[in-house]
Amino acid sequence: MSLSLTQLLAIDFPLIQAPMAGVSTPELAAAVSNAGGLGSLGLGASSVAQAEQSIVRTRALTARPFNVNLFCHRPPARDNAVESAWLAACRPLFSRFAAEPPRALAEIYTPFSGSGDMLDMLLAQAPAVVSFHFGLPDAAAIATLRAKGILLSATATNLAEARQIQASGIDVIIAQGFEAGGHRGMFDPQAVDYQTGTLALVQLLKRHLAIPVVAAGGIMDGAGIGAMMTAGADGAQLGTAFLLCPESAADESYRRAIRARRETPTWMTAAISGRPARCIDNDFCRFARRAADLAVPPYPLAYDAGKALAAAARAQGEDGFGAHWAGQGINLIREMPAAALVATLMEEYRRTEK
Amino acid sequence: MSLSLTQLLAIDFPLIQAPMAGVSTPELAAAVSNAGGLGSLGLGASSVAQAEQSIVRTRALTARPFNVNLFCHRPPARDNAVESAWLAACRPLFSRFAAEPPRALAEIYTPFSGSGDMLDMLLAQAPAVVSFHFGLPDAAAIATLRAKGILLSATATNLAEARQIQASGIDVIIAQGFEAGGHRGMFDPQAVDYQTGTLALVQLLKRHLAIPVVAAGGIMDGAGIGAMMTAGADGAQLGTAFLLCPESAADESYRRAIRARRETPTWMTAAISGRPARCIDNDFCRFARRAADLAVPPYPLAYDAGKALAAAARAQGEDGFGAHWAGQGINLIREMPAAALVATLMEEYRRTEK
Repeated sequence: MSLSLTQLLAIDFPLIQAPMAGVSTPELAAAVSNAGGLGSLGLGASSVAQAEQSIVRTRALTARPFNVNLFCHRPPARDNAVESAWLAACRPLFSRFAAEPPRALAEIYTPFSGSGDMLDMLLAQAPAVVSFHFGLPDAAAIATLRAKGILLSATATNLAEARQIQASGIDVIIAQGFEAGGHRGMFDPQAVDYQTGTLALVQLLKRHLAIPVVAAGGIMDGAGIGAMMTAGADGAQLGTAFLLCPESAADESYRRAIRARRETPTWMTAAISGRPARCIDNDFCRFARRAADLAVPPYPLAYDAGKALAAAARAQGEDGFGAHWAGQGINLIREMPAAALVATLMEEYRRTEK
Repeated sequence: MSLSLTQLLAIDFPLIQAPMAGVSTPELAAAVSNAGGLGSLGLGASSVAQAEQSIVRTRALTARPFNVNLFCHRPPARDNAVESAWLAACRPLFSRFAAEPPRALAEIYTPFSGSGDMLDMLLAQAPAVVSFHFGLPDAAAIATLRAKGILLSATATNLAEARQIQASGIDVIIAQGFEAGGHRGMFDPQAVDYQTGTLALVQLLKRHLAIPVVAAGGIMDGAGIGAMMTAGADGAQLGTAFLLCPESAADESYRRAIRARRETPTWMTAAISGRPARCIDNDFCRFARRAADLAVPPYPLAYDAGKALAAAARAQGEDGFGAHWAGQGINLIREMPAAALVATLMEEYRRTEK
């Protein structure tokens, strides 16, 4: 590899703010980019118009490169029996909050197909970096985006996915360890998940791949960044560390759940959205452990019920059913503006370099 | 903390060879200690006479400190219904190898009770370090061993266990991440396991505890050691890295399973021994995933059947049912004598320090 990650991305510091759909904002992404890292917009849950608006707004706030993240999951297969059984299992939870589950589950997000209006918008806006989660778009979309000079990255949770990413011509791999908060990027959620941690995953990928590997999962401070760079990573992606920034869109319920204590465990569950995701251990996670034998409707169908339940609970003052995604490092979180956090991370990291 | 881990343990290099009952040998422990690390004997499955013999033999091979590890699990509650159902579920596996499951499960290892002949032997032999896994002995045993000048350590998989270890007067904590091979040291195997990875666990424990914290899990080379030291660990414990050393007691079946390929996934399962343990993903792990709904008899009862099944399979030339414990870093394994491996690790680690 001829260019370092910072050279490739034209950033000062090998730090990427994780996209985090629903949490990231133009203000957060721009603050991180202006401070010398790579800010990201998580647009996997956005319409084309919303996505375009976010990009335009971010560009108004920074002249530096930033990253736009899209979801490439397979559209869910519908199964009435599974969906009905799931809604029935959720009914007692809704009843606790004097609410009813949705009568049917809707496909609340459509994946990036690699064509159509979303591709046209990306080509027109041409953000410096576009990244993919839950899989890859087709080869034509990758070629078209690259031809426009857009750098591409994608999430891998194992070596097979990483090889597929490299073979597709994508520039950078995000190596997402089992510690990471939010949705696990596995391409096939039906496959056995070997749950590889960030350290082991980074070292394995570095041994087998030529393109840059960015460590993601469990990293919260400059010492953690330094640890992963020492292990051989080309950069670090942090999401959870930014949750309490004033620029994040995490709502008060989410912030309360994070601030509640400093020994918060997290839990990986597919029950909230239909795909495995790491959440602050709450009543939804406890329900998931009790309901472990039940099939969960595929992403994003289950998320339709999950979001309705969170809203019903919150309306009654109960935070425990939120999709409060967080990584295993949550207890090291600090609350400060994003620019100050990036400066702190850079300073801490430089100290580890001696 | 006034002394570094190397000063405290009187070793040259902050490296502990993990005890690994059934794999460690006096030759392995002595080679590691002679090379400047802390060698360990895993004696949790040994009788008092066997344990004494191992210690005497190790002392004949090294004048340096070494560590003796004991198991402190709660003795298993017996449950005929669970045990019979488990044996019935295992019967088809045995039949594949023209064998019968045991008629009843035996308690093949007894835990270190903190008194009796094992304590007397330890006090008489006085190894430099004694370590505990699966819990702690009682306060009197800890006090007696410490009064003899023996340094003590114990495994923690979460903050609550680590606090209990520190409060008991033990000197060093082994922070065992979810990546680690072999048995997870959780005190209560019935509690929810939050599966914290090594990086996040080390950083959490360092924030809350005053005694040295040794990182264990997923560390295979000097870069991995350097990564954990950068993250704040006081030392690193490596087990899997030593499996293919000629001094290890890993049998040919185990070595074949490790050498078979370089992209070996591992799986955490309680089905082999009755306690969660990380194994090379094999037919036993696949059976465990299929039988996930079935209660597994508690450790070490299930291990009686697991060992019998492994033996029956191996007798028919089948390696896939072995208790082939390995951590997530298994694919970075190197095959060399223990002294050369320790020298290599030291050299690699020094390079990370620049």
